[in-house]
Amino acid sequence: MRVHTDYLWFNTKQRQEFIRITDEVAKIVEASGVSEGMVLVSAMHITAAVYVNDWEDGLIHDFQQWLEKLAPAGLPYRHHQTGEDNADAHLKRTLMGHQVIVPITKGKLDLGPWEQVFYAEFDGQRRKRVVVKVMGE
Amino acid sequence: MRVHTDYLWFNTKQRQEFIRITDEVAKIVEASGVSEGMVLVSAMHITAAVYVNDWEDGLIHDFQQWLEKLAPAGLPYRHHQTGEDNADAHLKRTLMGHQVIVPITKGKLDLGPWEQVFYAEFDGQRRKRVVVKVMGE
Amino acid sequence: MRVHTDYLWFNTKQRQEFIRITDEVAKIVEASGVSEGMVLVSAMHITAAVYVNDWEDGLIHDFQQWLEKLAPAGLPYRHHQTGEDNADAHLKRTLMGHQVIVPITKGKLDLGPWEQVFYAEFDGQRRKRVVVKVMGE
Repeated sequence: MRVHTDYLWFNTKQRQEFIRITDEVAKIVEASGVSEGMVLVSAMHITAAVYVNDWEDGLIHDFQQWLEKLAPAGLPYRHHQTGEDNADAHLKRTLMGHQVIVPITKGKLDLGPWEQVFYAEFDGQRRKRVVVKVMGE
Repeated sequence: MRVHTDYLWFNTKQRQEFIRITDEVAKIVEASGVSEGMVLVSAMHITAAVYVNDWEDGLIHDFQQWLEKLAPAGLPYRHHQTGEDNADAHLKRTLMGHQVIVPITKGKLDLGPWEQVFYAEFDGQRRKRVVVKVMGE
Repeated sequence: MRVHTDYLWFNTKQRQEFIRITDEVAKIVEASGVSEGMVLVSAMHITAAVYVNDWEDGLIHDFQQWLEKLAPAGLPYRHHQTGEDNADAHLKRTLMGHQVIVPITKGKLDLGPWEQVFYAEFDGQRRKRVVVKVMGE
């Protein structure tokens, strides 16, 4: 049994940014030597998400509009009484999910034809991490 | 350590359909020979969900009404400029989640009394897959 | 390879209650002897959630207000024709997610600085369980 751990770092220019990370995850899996197993990809900060969906700019725009409608910025959230201003980022990341597991089969990410892994930053412009944990044989 | 992979295929008659797959997952776990571990059940298409909840038709109806309210079909989504018409399906699957992990204990799915695994199709009428990956010993 | 299973029991005083369980999960991981691997923390009842986010009372209040807006109690849900009155709890738990995987690195939960594991009860005042499954070496 092999267990392999790595981290991806992000420091986005925009407060909100969606970044495709499929290739980075695939590289870590390759380095792990695991050919059958699973890889966990999980945001380590609570205002960021990791999700699987389409690599299509229009859809990413739709996701962002939709998240703004369901979890708007700028409301008088109680969390802001602590001095924070990012309660909406906590809610948005909850809607998108903060982690995914990708199965590894024959040494490759076992993804469907359109599946891509994304990092979604909702409160960026500072260094944040994603943990990538590979387990298998 | 054992790792076992299988796939479930779906080709729904309706565009939207919710299908209970607990028994199919249990059969794959049995075939794997794993008695202690986990099984990942993950939609390989980005307009379908896999979730755990109640096997009760009224609640499934409530889920569908609720998803239509939070992520309506027929809006002028930017994704549709590519010729697609299914942006709402991407959003709905995101709300429901696209994968679950079920623990395996003493050779059985370690589920609570009302937990059932479901496949939720939001853009069907074509062949789509779910990967089932079992890991354990 | 080690696989270790334990359960956390809850019987909340309030119908809705959010409870931090990071320390309980860490203790089970310690008892498992696993130093590299993953731990699954999963609600076994379909009206409760397990999620990772901030340990800040204001934000927890915001989550509760937000869930009430997106998945209100008291609507004429079809599920209620069975005699139940908790359809909103099924929806709320779906928004929050019902399980998380925490990576284990060097014998510790590999969590970011603000990540805390929570149990969110939406239909409490009775005994309910969470399964904690540790896998690794």
